[in-house]
Amino acid sequence: MGIHKYLVEFLGAFFLIFTIGMVVVRPDGPHPLAALAIGSVLMVMIYAGGHISGAHYNPAVTLAVTLRGKCSVPDAIPYVLAQCLAAVAAGLLVLHLNPGVPVVAKVIQPAPAIICEFLFTFALCFVVLNVATAKANQGNSFYGLAIGFTVIAGALAVAPISGGAFNPAVAIGGAVMGLLKWSDMWIHFVGEVTGAITAVLVFRAVVHDPG
Amino acid sequence: MGIHKYLVEFLGAFFLIFTIGMVVVRPDGPHPLAALAIGSVLMVMIYAGGHISGAHYNPAVTLAVTLRGKCSVPDAIPYVLAQCLAAVAAGLLVLHLNPGVPVVAKVIQPAPAIICEFLFTFALCFVVLNVATAKANQGNSFYGLAIGFTVIAGALAVAPISGGAFNPAVAIGGAVMGLLKWSDMWIHFVGEVTGAITAVLVFRAVVHDPG
Amino acid sequence: MGIHKYLVEFLGAFFLIFTIGMVVVRPDGPHPLAALAIGSVLMVMIYAGGHISGAHYNPAVTLAVTLRGKCSVPDAIPYVLAQCLAAVAAGLLVLHLNPGVPVVAKVIQPAPAIICEFLFTFALCFVVLNVATAKANQGNSFYGLAIGFTVIAGALAVAPISGGAFNPAVAIGGAVMGLLKWSDMWIHFVGEVTGAITAVLVFRAVVHDPG
Amino acid sequence: MGIHKYLVEFLGAFFLIFTIGMVVVRPDGPHPLAALAIGSVLMVMIYAGGHISGAHYNPAVTLAVTLRGKCSVPDAIPYVLAQCLAAVAAGLLVLHLNPGVPVVAKVIQPAPAIICEFLFTFALCFVVLNVATAKANQGNSFYGLAIGFTVIAGALAVAPISGGAFNPAVAIGGAVMGLLKWSDMWIHFVGEVTGAITAVLVFRAVVHDPG
Repeated sequence: MGIHKYLVEFLGAFFLIFTIGMVVVRPDGPHPLAALAIGSVLMVMIYAGGHISGAHYNPAVTLAVTLRGKCSVPDAIPYVLAQCLAAVAAGLLVLHLNPGVPVVAKVIQPAPAIICEFLFTFALCFVVLNVATAKANQGNSFYGLAIGFTVIAGALAVAPISGGAFNPAVAIGGAVMGLLKWSDMWIHFVGEVTGAITAVLVFRAVVHDPG
Repeated sequence: MGIHKYLVEFLGAFFLIFTIGMVVVRPDGPHPLAALAIGSVLMVMIYAGGHISGAHYNPAVTLAVTLRGKCSVPDAIPYVLAQCLAAVAAGLLVLHLNPGVPVVAKVIQPAPAIICEFLFTFALCFVVLNVATAKANQGNSFYGLAIGFTVIAGALAVAPISGGAFNPAVAIGGAVMGLLKWSDMWIHFVGEVTGAITAVLVFRAVVHDPG
Repeated sequence: MGIHKYLVEFLGAFFLIFTIGMVVVRPDGPHPLAALAIGSVLMVMIYAGGHISGAHYNPAVTLAVTLRGKCSVPDAIPYVLAQCLAAVAAGLLVLHLNPGVPVVAKVIQPAPAIICEFLFTFALCFVVLNVATAKANQGNSFYGLAIGFTVIAGALAVAPISGGAFNPAVAIGGAVMGLLKWSDMWIHFVGEVTGAITAVLVFRAVVHDPG
Repeated sequence: MGIHKYLVEFLGAFFLIFTIGMVVVRPDGPHPLAALAIGSVLMVMIYAGGHISGAHYNPAVTLAVTLRGKCSVPDAIPYVLAQCLAAVAAGLLVLHLNPGVPVVAKVIQPAPAIICEFLFTFALCFVVLNVATAKANQGNSFYGLAIGFTVIAGALAVAPISGGAFNPAVAIGGAVMGLLKWSDMWIHFVGEVTGAITAVLVFRAVVHDPG
């Protein structure tokens, strides 16, 4: 009965990860404005799909919103599946559209990368919980801007250290495209899941009337 | 009786295509922030003209909004004519203001270009239908931001493959300026029209109370 | 009795023109993000001062808003004086803070420069009239974003041809700093004044219930 | 009893200063989009935390808002402590994540640096007071955009002269990272504190019904 929502989650995650791939996998290297493109596409897909599915497009966000009580568990599982399926589809399409473009998997160190993914996944989920689920911010027009530009800031800040995914589906898409190593996925997942959980704990601690 | 609306469609499309031309046709090549300029001018013209004509500035958007039932067929035809006329006028003015600047028509491959134009025209129309016509989003202040920044993301993502028009009037303007080949127009039109139609179908499928 | 409004007009124009000078007058040439800085400072000063003075910061905007009937003539004159005084003050401070930085006055051709200043001053005033004075858009949160980003698009599009002022006070500030020639001021004034007047005429023609 | 607010002030200031450090302390020098990252992270943290603590993240803003009567003195002191503690923590983490990256403290001249820090701290506080505390702007969705983009404009305009902090906690974080000299802290503090106080005085003079 929620299949329209799963389709929107697929579409949003697909365009997010397709855009990431297309601005990074290039003969002359990543576009200087890559972070702007990535944050922008996330923002616009949130504004388009927010009223339908909540516009997570990110398993870490689905985890945080579910723990927050604003997404049901029976929805959470197909949400994550749709997001990951979108990652694979987007990654394969990027490779198909860029034959012969060399891709080198980023070398990352576990501890610093976990710290960076933890921090900005925390920031992303904390922003989402406050701008999209808190009673005091109901009816605002800035939720997509806030969420999208968190990823712009995060990508510019920590991409050299962790790749700047803040999103397990993005990490999977990165691995499909060869930008990240499959053997490094655990690094992303650990940082991102703990970041999402911590965001829920802090949100509960600091927002007294969450609604 | 709708001539004030056709004039606004002309003006919005004119400034969009004039800006595209001026940031791309330069002695030293496209400006590094070209995508920002293009998305910005679209955004501001949408905020200026939205309350008058709906601010399509794009035959693909007019097609999608008409199929959605929010633009009448008798309006749709002069809308598209005004947009295409604006494209010719803007293209000629860009050439007039840049005498002697060399312009090389982009070489594009049909299949990848159609995929890219399809995808981001779909995204653009899906964003428009949701942020500017869906009941749940009435009265928001983000519609221009969402639509304009879809083009920023799309232009950064796929311009190397298709030119990044997502708009038949922009494609025509590009051909007038010599940035695209007249013989490639069908590639744009096929991708853009099918993208617009698909956006309407998906919108109908996922939005249960469109208003 | 409106001196608080004139002070706000001075402050907004001062920060606009000071920022323009500081991002352009540099030992290593204009900052690549100069247009973003300029549009941003205009946007934020509009959001800060809009509720006090209407946040024109531009004699062309004051002319348009006065012809539109939303600024009184007794206010319009001190508004323009405050804006021009701010331009001189900002220009002198930029020179004071950048001793020895070479400044070369832009060489512009009258006809193309008038066309470009006309077009984007028209766009700027048309955006202002619609987002800040039209009844249908009352209470929106996007007016500063729309106005500021019009200048981003315009500066990126036509700065190579006209300097990209769209504002007689900015032109004066540019002349104080040596970026423009005093003998070229008429070019800016002609394009900007006719752009502002045309925006009012078009606004009246296309908006049936302006409020 | 306000510890949830102090935690939010810590988090917002931490992410602001961590992002500043990560986009500036790099093997190949500051990222070209550093200012966009910095303004973006400030914007998103304001949207996330505004409803909890008021989202100052800056002792100069806390000073201005307290003088304005919208922050109690018993809150102001722990706010500033939380912001400064966040600066130290963020600075140390940036150094930990970038071992061996050379950092050279900026050489600044007192008088020009004080002018620049004064001007944009004034602008920042004047924007904050108007968009986040003035009665006429209640319920708007643009407050974070306006405040964050003030810092984008300011950083692009005056960073070469003063470093572009506009925030004593940012100055301290810069000193921890070695980007600024401890012996230059007074320059920042003088400019920033006088800028904040002046903003309150001007706000009182120009806003007749502040609420």
